[in-house]
Amino acid sequence: MSTKDTFLSGAAQLLGERGFTTDADMISPWLTDWRGRFTGRALGMASPADTQQVAALVRLCGDHGVPIVPQGGNSGMSGGATPDKTGDAIVLSLRRMDKVRRFDVDARQITCDAGMILQTLHEAVEGENLRFPLTLGGKGSATIGGLISTNAGGTQVLRHGSMRSQVLGIEAVMADGTVFDSLRPLKKDNRGFDLKQLLIGSEGTLGIVTAATLRLLPALADRAVLWAGLADIRDARKLLLHAERVAGDALEGFEVMPRHSLDAVLTHSANARAPLQDAHPWNALIELTADASGADALPALAQQLLESAFEQDLVADATIARNEAQAEAFWMLRDEIAPAERALGPAMQHDISVPVADMADFVADAVPKVESAFPGHTAVAFGHLGDGNVHFHVLAPQDATPGEWEESEGKTISAFVHDQVTAWKGSISAEHGIGQLKRDELARLADPAQLAIMRQVKQALDPRGLLNPGKLVPLETGAEPL
Amino acid sequence: MSTKDTFLSGAAQLLGERGFTTDADMISPWLTDWRGRFTGRALGMASPADTQQVAALVRLCGDHGVPIVPQGGNSGMSGGATPDKTGDAIVLSLRRMDKVRRFDVDARQITCDAGMILQTLHEAVEGENLRFPLTLGGKGSATIGGLISTNAGGTQVLRHGSMRSQVLGIEAVMADGTVFDSLRPLKKDNRGFDLKQLLIGSEGTLGIVTAATLRLLPALADRAVLWAGLADIRDARKLLLHAERVAGDALEGFEVMPRHSLDAVLTHSANARAPLQDAHPWNALIELTADASGADALPALAQQLLESAFEQDLVADATIARNEAQAEAFWMLRDEIAPAERALGPAMQHDISVPVADMADFVADAVPKVESAFPGHTAVAFGHLGDGNVHFHVLAPQDATPGEWEESEGKTISAFVHDQVTAWKGSISAEHGIGQLKRDELARLADPAQLAIMRQVKQALDPRGLLNPGKLVPLETGAEPL
Repeated sequence: MSTKDTFLSGAAQLLGERGFTTDADMISPWLTDWRGRFTGRALGMASPADTQQVAALVRLCGDHGVPIVPQGGNSGMSGGATPDKTGDAIVLSLRRMDKVRRFDVDARQITCDAGMILQTLHEAVEGENLRFPLTLGGKGSATIGGLISTNAGGTQVLRHGSMRSQVLGIEAVMADGTVFDSLRPLKKDNRGFDLKQLLIGSEGTLGIVTAATLRLLPALADRAVLWAGLADIRDARKLLLHAERVAGDALEGFEVMPRHSLDAVLTHSANARAPLQDAHPWNALIELTADASGADALPALAQQLLESAFEQDLVADATIARNEAQAEAFWMLRDEIAPAERALGPAMQHDISVPVADMADFVADAVPKVESAFPGHTAVAFGHLGDGNVHFHVLAPQDATPGEWEESEGKTISAFVHDQVTAWKGSISAEHGIGQLKRDELARLADPAQLAIMRQVKQALDPRGLLNPGKLVPLETGAEPL
Repeated sequence: MSTKDTFLSGAAQLLGERGFTTDADMISPWLTDWRGRFTGRALGMASPADTQQVAALVRLCGDHGVPIVPQGGNSGMSGGATPDKTGDAIVLSLRRMDKVRRFDVDARQITCDAGMILQTLHEAVEGENLRFPLTLGGKGSATIGGLISTNAGGTQVLRHGSMRSQVLGIEAVMADGTVFDSLRPLKKDNRGFDLKQLLIGSEGTLGIVTAATLRLLPALADRAVLWAGLADIRDARKLLLHAERVAGDALEGFEVMPRHSLDAVLTHSANARAPLQDAHPWNALIELTADASGADALPALAQQLLESAFEQDLVADATIARNEAQAEAFWMLRDEIAPAERALGPAMQHDISVPVADMADFVADAVPKVESAFPGHTAVAFGHLGDGNVHFHVLAPQDATPGEWEESEGKTISAFVHDQVTAWKGSISAEHGIGQLKRDELARLADPAQLAIMRQVKQALDPRGLLNPGKLVPLETGAEPL
């Protein structure tokens, strides 16, 4: 048998029929990323049943020099879970590992396998009057392991932080097949380097996350959702600071969108209605929340925020959702921006951040700069102003040829946007990670000192470059193909 | 000139008279750790004026193979900032670097040099109606850099987390003299490994922290301090869960102490008075706090907590401090435990944690076990029950000879306590770090997989072992002496 055949029969023997396949039809859906930007090939697809199988498989891959592409829900935005075109690697799906291992309601902690889907987790803890304070559009497919590996964000980061803040402990299989186990969470533990933190956000390039212990919060008892119309994005910054002062920890969300985005949603969605009578250059969506201990005071707090914002001339107009249905309708306007913009034609999308204090100035500066450098294009920024993170989209001219435009002018535009962000000391990936999509831009724009340290760490923990090769900070020399 | 002389004259030239000394009288106070457990020797002491001088010095040390022991306030508990006895290393004091670099009141962020003293930071932000939510006994000497390098804790971790949670960005000089700069904080940044997290808590073995950007919170407007008497430590656990439910985010501190500790304080301090009429086997000190947005509701919340705890039979007796003076007096009882216990004679002290949910059971199990294995000794556990972290002291018998006892029976006792903690899947260092004090116990008890990964990271980032040699996870081969 060739080395390749030895590997394949070893994997099949190790994992059984449910755990390993080379069937092209079975594998095919998992070879293209969610956005359809990247398509690769694979030697096979492994779906281990437990951590011990993952560890044994990693050792087998090591024996044969087979690269591994770990994959959760395959809903990442940067092609981080898609194999390259060589077909040398296997895809290692964690989706079969989807059990709750331990649920401690009193301690508000849950330990689950990496393959558990976010929405399933939400539902599992709701029954105990708890909540997991992270959510995002792909919650029906995104897995806990994928969310950890990409340090995912969402609309609740303002108050609760990104995935990193929710993770109390993880279990991961390292490149040599050893199992790193920090699942039993210690609130305080100063026994050296916090390796868990190194693995979070490492996109499967340092280890394969197989389980996690997560923190939970008391279920929400009530929320108040406000909509404000603003003359200028700089007023949104002032309103944010005001909301932080007035509402304190009750402030859970602060999203902004320009008139262009709201108009797009109103055109795109038959059910959508503008919350305010007049159109305003900018809109802010503010959510205050409370658990049982603060629910009584919430309506008065929202009213106080609204009135004081009017008094201090921070808003042109504003309103509070009258009931939960209207609150949902306000949020729908925010959630529908991406599909509504998509319907307008091709766009280059950028997931960027700058220091929170600078975001309003950045948008006010960068939008006209981009539109003047690329005539006929429209730049739109919307999203998480409270986190210094916006989705910065540049829409193609009406007459652009989709496909062609992205590969030519689109790429130039992205580099231009990334240059602007770098000049403002920001990040070219606030939420979505680097994957393969932004790998070359990272190499071009990142601080060389930081890149060098990342490569040293990668070299130390995966010296043969078998874990998710070609992603993030690849080693100069990859694995030998079979 | 010998290599040693070349180095010394190079360092003197680089740093000037204020920046480098070989004067034994000047250096001597910094060669013994705060607890007086370790005393070392040093080739010289450097006090650089800025980050560029630190970087140049690290390169000079690299050229000559001179090890570096970074030092902040020299108030660490594990000998992590004390050089070894060879006299080959220099002490690198960060104390001269003590400036605020940038203070953004609106964004509630401050950037300061690593040598800034914690108390100075507290005072600097108070004027702007803000607070830095971490404090501890050594605040008058502990520096920001030292607090970061040891991921320090304190009495506010329950609500606000340890030092790691306060750090938004750091600047550090790596072993090769490059400057790692993540000072401009991005709330969201997913450009690869979070190297900042790797450096936090690494005790100067991976890099030398030279500055940090820290988060600040609104100043406290009010607090309510409760004292409860309890029949059993397991009741303290129930009371903690109840307080979390009732008070939510207002719960800032939850400390426990046994009757033995309270009696020791009442004997030791002339001003101390017991808060409750009767003595109880256990006592809990609970602090609720509020900023301006929640101050009005605080007294009623404290009252509600007290009454519901009585109704549910969670406390034997309890009271609320009538005013700020009494609140201070309650906290003084907690803060005086360490000196009061010290007055009773020698003790082995252990800074341990187990999962929060298990701490009450652990104490109930371990205290009698230790006292039965070592007749005549008294085991006392007190501290941060809400964090799963207690100070576990074992007091020597009355007739023990100080000095002798620590070195003989004391060491056996510590190993016994650490074995118990390990059996409960806990940590032998919850707050104080490993340094040189617990280095061998870490090597004996830590998960070999985790130790191996730590050594790989250390080897990658400091291949010659010049940064704080002999601490935490030393490389097998250290630096060549001059």
